[in-house]
Amino acid sequence: MKIKTVGIIVKDKSEAVATTLRTLHDFLVSKSCKILLDPNAEGLLSKDIPVLDRETLGNQSDLAIVIGGDGTFLSAVRALVDCNVPILGINLGRLGFLVDIYPDEMLQTMEQILGGDYVEESRFLLSAQVIRDKKVLTEAHAFNDVVIHIRDVARMIEFKTYINDQYVNYQRADGIVISTPTGSTAYALSGGGPLLHATLDAIVLVPICPHTLSNRPLVVNANSEIDIVIGENRQSTAQVTFDGQNGYDVMPGDTIRIWRKATAVQLIHPAHYDYYHILRAKLRWSEQL
Amino acid sequence: MKIKTVGIIVKDKSEAVATTLRTLHDFLVSKSCKILLDPNAEGLLSKDIPVLDRETLGNQSDLAIVIGGDGTFLSAVRALVDCNVPILGINLGRLGFLVDIYPDEMLQTMEQILGGDYVEESRFLLSAQVIRDKKVLTEAHAFNDVVIHIRDVARMIEFKTYINDQYVNYQRADGIVISTPTGSTAYALSGGGPLLHATLDAIVLVPICPHTLSNRPLVVNANSEIDIVIGENRQSTAQVTFDGQNGYDVMPGDTIRIWRKATAVQLIHPAHYDYYHILRAKLRWSEQL
Amino acid sequence: MKIKTVGIIVKDKSEAVATTLRTLHDFLVSKSCKILLDPNAEGLLSKDIPVLDRETLGNQSDLAIVIGGDGTFLSAVRALVDCNVPILGINLGRLGFLVDIYPDEMLQTMEQILGGDYVEESRFLLSAQVIRDKKVLTEAHAFNDVVIHIRDVARMIEFKTYINDQYVNYQRADGIVISTPTGSTAYALSGGGPLLHATLDAIVLVPICPHTLSNRPLVVNANSEIDIVIGENRQSTAQVTFDGQNGYDVMPGDTIRIWRKATAVQLIHPAHYDYYHILRAKLRWSEQL
Amino acid sequence: MKIKTVGIIVKDKSEAVATTLRTLHDFLVSKSCKILLDPNAEGLLSKDIPVLDRETLGNQSDLAIVIGGDGTFLSAVRALVDCNVPILGINLGRLGFLVDIYPDEMLQTMEQILGGDYVEESRFLLSAQVIRDKKVLTEAHAFNDVVIHIRDVARMIEFKTYINDQYVNYQRADGIVISTPTGSTAYALSGGGPLLHATLDAIVLVPICPHTLSNRPLVVNANSEIDIVIGENRQSTAQVTFDGQNGYDVMPGDTIRIWRKATAVQLIHPAHYDYYHILRAKLRWSEQL
Repeated sequence: MKIKTVGIIVKDKSEAVATTLRTLHDFLVSKSCKILLDPNAEGLLSKDIPVLDRETLGNQSDLAIVIGGDGTFLSAVRALVDCNVPILGINLGRLGFLVDIYPDEMLQTMEQILGGDYVEESRFLLSAQVIRDKKVLTEAHAFNDVVIHIRDVARMIEFKTYINDQYVNYQRADGIVISTPTGSTAYALSGGGPLLHATLDAIVLVPICPHTLSNRPLVVNANSEIDIVIGENRQSTAQVTFDGQNGYDVMPGDTIRIWRKATAVQLIHPAHYDYYHILRAKLRWSEQL
Repeated sequence: MKIKTVGIIVKDKSEAVATTLRTLHDFLVSKSCKILLDPNAEGLLSKDIPVLDRETLGNQSDLAIVIGGDGTFLSAVRALVDCNVPILGINLGRLGFLVDIYPDEMLQTMEQILGGDYVEESRFLLSAQVIRDKKVLTEAHAFNDVVIHIRDVARMIEFKTYINDQYVNYQRADGIVISTPTGSTAYALSGGGPLLHATLDAIVLVPICPHTLSNRPLVVNANSEIDIVIGENRQSTAQVTFDGQNGYDVMPGDTIRIWRKATAVQLIHPAHYDYYHILRAKLRWSEQL
Repeated sequence: MKIKTVGIIVKDKSEAVATTLRTLHDFLVSKSCKILLDPNAEGLLSKDIPVLDRETLGNQSDLAIVIGGDGTFLSAVRALVDCNVPILGINLGRLGFLVDIYPDEMLQTMEQILGGDYVEESRFLLSAQVIRDKKVLTEAHAFNDVVIHIRDVARMIEFKTYINDQYVNYQRADGIVISTPTGSTAYALSGGGPLLHATLDAIVLVPICPHTLSNRPLVVNANSEIDIVIGENRQSTAQVTFDGQNGYDVMPGDTIRIWRKATAVQLIHPAHYDYYHILRAKLRWSEQL
Repeated sequence: MKIKTVGIIVKDKSEAVATTLRTLHDFLVSKSCKILLDPNAEGLLSKDIPVLDRETLGNQSDLAIVIGGDGTFLSAVRALVDCNVPILGINLGRLGFLVDIYPDEMLQTMEQILGGDYVEESRFLLSAQVIRDKKVLTEAHAFNDVVIHIRDVARMIEFKTYINDQYVNYQRADGIVISTPTGSTAYALSGGGPLLHATLDAIVLVPICPHTLSNRPLVVNANSEIDIVIGENRQSTAQVTFDGQNGYDVMPGDTIRIWRKATAVQLIHPAHYDYYHILRAKLRWSEQL
């Protein structure tokens, strides 16, 4: 990877973002890199820097840098997934699962990365469709998870799960999370799901508040096609959300179809990247008493 | 308990309810009992039978009979709790947790109950207030549970719990269930809570989808006063529901105060009542493979 | 409580114990208290101090002080439970659940306690019998828990549970924990049990590694009599342990009977005692990420 | 697969086994198959049938048939794994996870299988070594799981986990299960682990009774090398077992190294094989109330 053009995506125009962006800009200019900005950063740097929509930015960059938190990174990944550009994240606050470079190590780490000293990691996304009467109503993708969830706290939904057209089970619950390994530390975790190593080629299905004693998360091959069919015999409405950021209402009888997106995304980590360290630091996983 | 007047509360005017109601009516008349009906049953029997609102019905009856499911029973208990009238339930469908008399054993069981052969069981309800700026906005009670829950699937709420004015903990989650032993087989169970024997003098607090690895349900004395204080620093809205039947919107900074209602309710069960049998039959609890 | 005689029980003859013991001795002497020692402390102080077995020590003391960890405290409570003497614990290491006075606050706290400024808390123990062919083979009591557990990792045991002679369920598992509220932070916690407030009048039954999806801990009234009957049709042996400190082998067909010991124990805590603080500090309960 | 020679492995010499074996023998003879028997079956058929140790039997057969339960199947797989022979199981009792042909459909299913109408499924085993002072003390393999477990119920063990030489975490617990997808329905399930689809290329690590609130199973790539290092500072002894059938004592400081065995085993299933059906039928998974 020869890095000549760097696209930068930011969370917002806050002072913290602006300061980090300027420091990064000066460093990259000193390394003769060209910089592109996403619209969120408009006005934060000199007017000479091109501001482009995220997809154009991704297509013209050799590296995309996200300044923000995990939420900003999730939306950047979804926007850039088809641009064939590796992505790294600089965290403004505490350590994130995805944005794993602290501001105070940013320049040193960038120096190493431009010099070719980094870890590259391929991760997959989910594609999803909402299907009603055999018509596709909407299509989206998700880096963490697709969540089907009640809209009204007082009413459970009913749904059947099929994997590769094979019937799996019928559940009454508040919902279900279909998660990538990346998402196994997010909402799937809240629902009691296992941790999946970030590069595992698997999808995990975690029911949310099932009204039965006999449930358990299920981990399946990433190349499975998963259909969640909302039960016909209830009036309760449900909502499907992608990475908890975009939502869509679904109705009894609708099918939500989920599969691994063909194109993966490449994440760039510092050379000292350690996934288990991040799990321990972020989740206090197995911390001793 | 000398039973002269029987108040009957029904789920709806369905054929199944009407048939059961007529059979019960004829039996009670043959036993010289006076019958009172709640408005849901209006028109199902002869016009001579008085139709009264539930509270008046409760005050004038020696026994209240609920024909329906657990949901009908819950709302009947809340309506009758201050009437000092024992309640029994006839289940139209499958066995319920609360409505534990099957239609096909109804007359035989009623014969026994009128003859004094029954089990009486005292169960408590929860009282709750929503407090904003030191003012009580609403007050309600619940036989199963008080649930505080997000309204929008994509946003966790933050809240602090205090018990008898002592700080317990701070949680980020989809919500929390504060449940009576009666409610421990309902939504608290879906959230991973323990089973509490129906007559235990305790309240259980079960977080819903907490985003932490280090959580666990907490069981406290029933005479505890529990305050859930919604975090100030989030814009996410929450909803409090009582028995999953009545809801109320709450805002950042609101306190939901919960305590055991002073007046308990008396349930009447058949002489062969067996709580553990109901757990096994309804939950397939500990069923062997 | 007028404290003239103080019985002191120690973990061992380590330097840390000896130092703490001497400091405590000098303080108590300055307050004109008489001191009694248990055999573990023999030789640590002047020969003038009487050394007595724990039961005699308990009977002659107005207050018993335990220097050590939770394990020392558990065995002291079992030894002193019938002596009608309140007990407090000084922790040599980190905060304990039971030994809740740090050495560096010991003298200040003792000053307050001798002055009547303290919290007294009543907690119950379990009594247990192993019964074979209607004969009681052994009897013991436990402050934390009675645990029935496989001896051989490769073989599950089968057992039936009865409460007040009522059949509860049949389980195949590695074992079961029957725990007091005090024990709910110990082995019951490892098995997935709920936290019980220390003064709750309840017993919790937690299965250990049940081979079924449909299990859940059960919380019952403390005045319940619990019978665990080991299955006849397996050759696997099991062991019953009391507070994880004393063990007894049981055979197919044996009954382990458990009930609340009639005599409770009084714990003395510093005036600033806060049970939820101990839960948070020891368990990192609900700690935020 | 052209099936000329069939090796048959049986659980024992019980009447049920003998009857099934004779029926199967007559059928295979009618199909001109040659039959080989393992020593467990000696004497059950005519003396003309060769009785061979399992490895020789495996090497000379085109198909191995196991008559028994899942336990018999597990030991057969371990014996035959290097013989390059596909295996199928006939269950004498109820449906098994591994032995999935009922006796009453045996001949019909065998007819189909000899005719080429079947499902073939590749599953992997684990290899394991116990290493002390850099010397390999023992080596074994497992089809379900490698379990490291306390020997004495009253003492937790401490251990550190490393994956591909990367530190994962430190745990105090009763033990840990390292399980194949095949084993995810066995002891790993009892410990609270997720279900893994049988053909998933992953290994799951499930702690047994961890004494912490902050634990969760971990699913990793099947090509990971997993090291469990027993803590040095405890005197408690532990045991490692392979499929719960063979055990080995381990000591503080020992390393148990686990990786996917290079050679997989081929299972033969009836054409109507449905893994999710087996999960539902055996585990009552997601069964509705």
